[in-house]
Amino acid sequence: MPRSESPPPHKRARQSSSAEHENGLSLPPLSLSILGVEPLDEFIKEIADWVHYTIVNRPPDLQGKIEVEAKVGLLRDRSSGQRLMLPVLVETIIAPDSIDLRFESNMSLQQHKHFNTRLNELKTASTQPSFPSTPLEYSHLYLLDSFYPTDNPHDKDKIRVTRNEKTGTVLECMRKIRLGDLNIFSPKRAADWRVSVNLEVPVSHPVGTPTHTRKKDRLSYSHEEFSIDLTQVTASTSPGSPPKLLHELEIEIARPALLLATAAKRGDPSVPELERSAFDELIRAFVNNARILVRNASEGWQ
Amino acid sequence: MPRSESPPPHKRARQSSSAEHENGLSLPPLSLSILGVEPLDEFIKEIADWVHYTIVNRPPDLQGKIEVEAKVGLLRDRSSGQRLMLPVLVETIIAPDSIDLRFESNMSLQQHKHFNTRLNELKTASTQPSFPSTPLEYSHLYLLDSFYPTDNPHDKDKIRVTRNEKTGTVLECMRKIRLGDLNIFSPKRAADWRVSVNLEVPVSHPVGTPTHTRKKDRLSYSHEEFSIDLTQVTASTSPGSPPKLLHELEIEIARPALLLATAAKRGDPSVPELERSAFDELIRAFVNNARILVRNASEGWQ
Repeated sequence: MPRSESPPPHKRARQSSSAEHENGLSLPPLSLSILGVEPLDEFIKEIADWVHYTIVNRPPDLQGKIEVEAKVGLLRDRSSGQRLMLPVLVETIIAPDSIDLRFESNMSLQQHKHFNTRLNELKTASTQPSFPSTPLEYSHLYLLDSFYPTDNPHDKDKIRVTRNEKTGTVLECMRKIRLGDLNIFSPKRAADWRVSVNLEVPVSHPVGTPTHTRKKDRLSYSHEEFSIDLTQVTASTSPGSPPKLLHELEIEIARPALLLATAAKRGDPSVPELERSAFDELIRAFVNNARILVRNASEGWQ
Repeated sequence: MPRSESPPPHKRARQSSSAEHENGLSLPPLSLSILGVEPLDEFIKEIADWVHYTIVNRPPDLQGKIEVEAKVGLLRDRSSGQRLMLPVLVETIIAPDSIDLRFESNMSLQQHKHFNTRLNELKTASTQPSFPSTPLEYSHLYLLDSFYPTDNPHDKDKIRVTRNEKTGTVLECMRKIRLGDLNIFSPKRAADWRVSVNLEVPVSHPVGTPTHTRKKDRLSYSHEEFSIDLTQVTASTSPGSPPKLLHELEIEIARPALLLATAAKRGDPSVPELERSAFDELIRAFVNNARILVRNASEGWQ
C-alpha cells in the first residue's frame, strides 16, 4: 500500500510536438515510481540509524558534546597499505569489523588547493541572489593542539588542549572519546570517507608535558547547520623526528545540542511530523554535503 | 560552482514555537546541500550509463526489439550455491566478471502470493483520486513458450515460440540475444536483483521438435512505461524428468521504440533539456520501481 504521507503527484510538465506524440517517441509525464514517490534512500537511512543508535547508546555517566563528523580520505588495507578494493561499482558502506583497514585522513597539497579554490568560488557564488541556498560564511583559524596522556595508562583517549596559536589563549580543554566509525568506500571517486561519532568531555587543564602537538592552519566554512573545515596540519611527534604535513577535510554538524534534541524526537509519534523527521533531515543534508565533497576530490562541483 | 540548472531553493517550511527557537533546539529550514540541490544518485547514474552503453553498442547488423528488464531473485556463489555475501551494509552494484556467481530468477510460493496480494492492493489503491500516481492496469495471461535450437550449433541463443496456451495462437517467434547483465546485491533485503539488456530478433517459425517448454501463468500489471510480470512457470526439460515450478518477478520497460528514441537524444546539446534528460528519467523510474519491488520481498510497501 502507498505510504500514508505521500506528497502530491510528482510528474514533469512536458511539452512536445504533436508529431512526436503521434510517433509515441516522446516520454509522457512520468511518476517517480508505482507508489508515486521516491523510494527511501537506503544509504542515508543506514547512516541515520547508525548515528542515532550510537548517540542514544552513549556512555550515560559522561557529560560532554556529541561530535558527528565526516572526514574525506582513503581507506587502506592494513597489511598491504593499498587503497581498499571491493568488487562493486558504486559508493557503499563497509560492514563494521569485516575488513582489517585503517582510514587515512589526508590528501595531496594539490587536492587541498583544489578544495580551497572550489569552496571559495562557492562562497562567492552563494552570496548571489540567484543561488539556490544560504550564503556560506568563512573564517581563517590558527590553532595549536597539545595532547596529554590521561591518568589511566590503559586509556587510549587523550586530553587535548586547543590554543589560539597567535595569542596563546586556551580555547578548549577536553578528552575526546571515540564512540564509533562507519567507513564509506567510493570506488568511482578519488577519495573515500568516514563518519565518526565522538564524545568531547571538558576536563581541567592537565599538568606535565604534551606527548605531541598539531599546528592547524584551518579554513573554516560554515553553511546552515554544518562546518566544513579544510585544514593544513603540521604534526610534531617526537623531538628528534621532523614535523609531518597533513591536509584534512571534514564536515561536522555544528550544534551538538540541536543534534541531541532532534535525535530524542526521532520517530516519536507524540510530536508533530516536522519534529519527528528533523533528525533524518539533518543527517540527509550532512550525507549530501559529504558526498558532494568526496565527488569533488578531483573535479568541479557535481 | 553550482550547477547551471539548479532548481529554486528546496527548504522545508517550518513552524515552531518561539521558545524552541530561543533554545536553538528546533531545526530551521535546511537546504538539501551546500549547493542547494540533491547530489546526483550515483547508483541510478551507473545503471543508466551501463544500459545506454549496452544499447548504443548493440550489434549493428541485427534488427530487433531492445528489452530492458530487472528480475528479482538471488545472487548465488557458483561453487557453494550459497547466497552472495559481501562485507557491505547497503545495496550495491557488483563489478561485472569480478565474482563467479549466478542469478536465480525464482522466489518461494509464499513470496509470490505476497507480491500478488500487494500488487492487487496497489492496483485498487491506485484507482482512488488521492493516489499520487497513475492507476495500474492488470491482465492475466496464459502462455506457452517452446524453445528450439538455432541453426548454428555453437550459438548459445535459442529460438523461442510463444503461444496463447488456451487458443494455441502463435504470439511471438524470436531469437533472444543477451547483450549484458548487471547484478545488484541487496544485503538488507530478502532478494537481490539483476538488470538485463536483450535483443529480441523476430525469426520465422522453426521446424523440428522443441528442446524444452515453459508454461507461464502470468499476472501482468502495467504502470505508465513499465510492465510488472509476476509469473508462475512450469518448466519441462526432458521427457523423463518431472516439471519444475518457478516463481518469477520482473519489471520491463514497455516500449522499446521509446527507449531507443530517448537513448539517442541522451545528453544531446542540440535538443531541449526535457528530451535530453528523458532517458535518465525513464531509467530513474525503472530503478525506483525495481527497488520498491525488492524491498517488498518480505514486507509491506516501503
